[in-house]
Amino acid sequence: MQRVLGRFQDDILSELRRVLAGADADPLTRPFYGQMAYHLGWVDAQFQPLAQPATGKLLRPALVLWSCQLAARAAGADAVTQRQRHHQALPAAAAVELVHNFSLIHDDIEDGDRLRHGRPALWCVWGEPQAINTGDGMFALARLALWESVARGLSAKKAITLASLLDATCLRLCEGQYRDMAAEASDDVTPDLYLDMIARKTAALMRAATTIGGTIGAPASKAIPAALAQFGQALGLAFQMRDDLLGIWAAHSELGKSPAGDLRRKKVTLPVIHALAHAPAADRARLRAIYRASEAPSDADIAYLLDVLEQTSHAWCRAQLAAQCAAAQTALTHACGPASGSDAAEALRALVAYIAIAARA
Amino acid sequence: MQRVLGRFQDDILSELRRVLAGADADPLTRPFYGQMAYHLGWVDAQFQPLAQPATGKLLRPALVLWSCQLAARAAGADAVTQRQRHHQALPAAAAVELVHNFSLIHDDIEDGDRLRHGRPALWCVWGEPQAINTGDGMFALARLALWESVARGLSAKKAITLASLLDATCLRLCEGQYRDMAAEASDDVTPDLYLDMIARKTAALMRAATTIGGTIGAPASKAIPAALAQFGQALGLAFQMRDDLLGIWAAHSELGKSPAGDLRRKKVTLPVIHALAHAPAADRARLRAIYRASEAPSDADIAYLLDVLEQTSHAWCRAQLAAQCAAAQTALTHACGPASGSDAAEALRALVAYIAIAARA
Repeated sequence: MQRVLGRFQDDILSELRRVLAGADADPLTRPFYGQMAYHLGWVDAQFQPLAQPATGKLLRPALVLWSCQLAARAAGADAVTQRQRHHQALPAAAAVELVHNFSLIHDDIEDGDRLRHGRPALWCVWGEPQAINTGDGMFALARLALWESVARGLSAKKAITLASLLDATCLRLCEGQYRDMAAEASDDVTPDLYLDMIARKTAALMRAATTIGGTIGAPASKAIPAALAQFGQALGLAFQMRDDLLGIWAAHSELGKSPAGDLRRKKVTLPVIHALAHAPAADRARLRAIYRASEAPSDADIAYLLDVLEQTSHAWCRAQLAAQCAAAQTALTHACGPASGSDAAEALRALVAYIAIAARA
Repeated sequence: MQRVLGRFQDDILSELRRVLAGADADPLTRPFYGQMAYHLGWVDAQFQPLAQPATGKLLRPALVLWSCQLAARAAGADAVTQRQRHHQALPAAAAVELVHNFSLIHDDIEDGDRLRHGRPALWCVWGEPQAINTGDGMFALARLALWESVARGLSAKKAITLASLLDATCLRLCEGQYRDMAAEASDDVTPDLYLDMIARKTAALMRAATTIGGTIGAPASKAIPAALAQFGQALGLAFQMRDDLLGIWAAHSELGKSPAGDLRRKKVTLPVIHALAHAPAADRARLRAIYRASEAPSDADIAYLLDVLEQTSHAWCRAQLAAQCAAAQTALTHACGPASGSDAAEALRALVAYIAIAARA
């Protein structure tokens, strides 16, 4: 995975730094942009550079750039054109990453999460008012970043198509967050409602990333960006399903996850929702009681929950994940055309295969 | 004023309703859009239509439309072309109003303000997490609204110019809010720092409104939108200065303001800041002490403050307001050209004259 995610990491970081530096020109507003740099993992709370930058995986911008490369190859672009389109895609990749991070800043406040990548969340350092405002600023900056693609030769019409897609995607993200908060306050979330929610909250931005990359890479094609849109959608759903599976059945070795971690925090994820709909009535009642109790689940509760989920949800969730991964691979094959042997095709297939591992027993 | 603000009110409201209706298509997310309609003053907290809609003044979208009309006349457009450009400007006017309202939703949370236009603020009805998220959604919707101008014949290049201006303006708004919150935590805000803050927080969006209107109205001109930009900037500064003057010296008759209201709430506005910089040292110390005290100012404190501000700040603030109003009228004259006798020119001049009233002794 490091090969797939690492390939464009320096390009993406330089582009993000260029976007922030372009806005951060006035000493009066320096701490406002400093808060953004803190959230992005570049500086500490005193705005001093971190010895070990704490940037996230940069998955979404990598999806933009790999999709761009794949689409350019699939459309038969020569090497010079491929490089031009990669250069045009960089500001769009930065825009997607900034949208993702603006939503994280606000989600952390909305969900009361105090840690982000192992560091205090922005609102815990500077307070909620500043964090709301800095998130808004990052949202505006994301939109500004995109227009640099036009300066690099993307046509005005294509740029509007992409900006409009990004706007609609942001609205989907907010709808997803609305549904997530509404679900928390409700007792009858069905698997279908949950899948609708993660389609908006997680898959929409991945779909936008691959669509934007595909559109810049193959501007004259409709089929290639459309296939990459399907790919991004399936990948995004699979990505969240994998997260939900690992939140319950992760081995200790798997990064950042502890076994049954989501159960200990009483997170309502796909395996739990499936069990609430399909476990025997007595188990459903006990599961609900454990989740509703004011105290944390005991070790005995956890063992019991693991047993119920193993019997009712594990195989079903793995099958759901496998189906999305298969859909992603199929869409990818459609997008590839003659580029199926390219580095980009291989990288994106490897990404799906990595996510699919959690689908195995 | 009602003639100036009322002229396009129905057009603006229909356009805003069209934008919301276009997004609000799924029963699952209806309450998310219902919250937006509540904030916009169309429905109550149960999403039932209000008998008396509580929309604000709709000043900013009116500025877009009057500026468009003025620019079209100034550029010599015929009546058919003027109507076409008005039609193109409507989505942009809606976008500007939605940006303004998204910022109000978030400002109310950030400032802890519980009332907005005499009704409970969105966050007081649905809680902070929902209000942050609904504000984000309105921000995204503002951006989406703008693209309808392209469907109505605005060129893609012009649309990108306007979108980019709106994005940069949103960043200015956030910078202004950052400076406002930073000033609250500080003891040494100078008049210059305050003017810099209101330039970002208030004037930037008015400037964007008149520039956007001018660009759509006179797409082939650089001089007309540039003059209208200057007009919007001066008008925005004047607008805030008037608000600050009326916050202290309003007669009871003036809408929504009570005499010394800003002093009772210990708001740090231009007259106070000027006095903190220029009153005799003893008065500065006592003013600071009253503002820092944990209790509300007594009637004697208010009488004292009014006396100090009358002596040190009233004339200066009125002169500042008069200067901005004069700058606005000059810029307007430049923008008008042969259209100086038009309805639009008259309306915009009347708006400045209305704001300038507070500059009189």
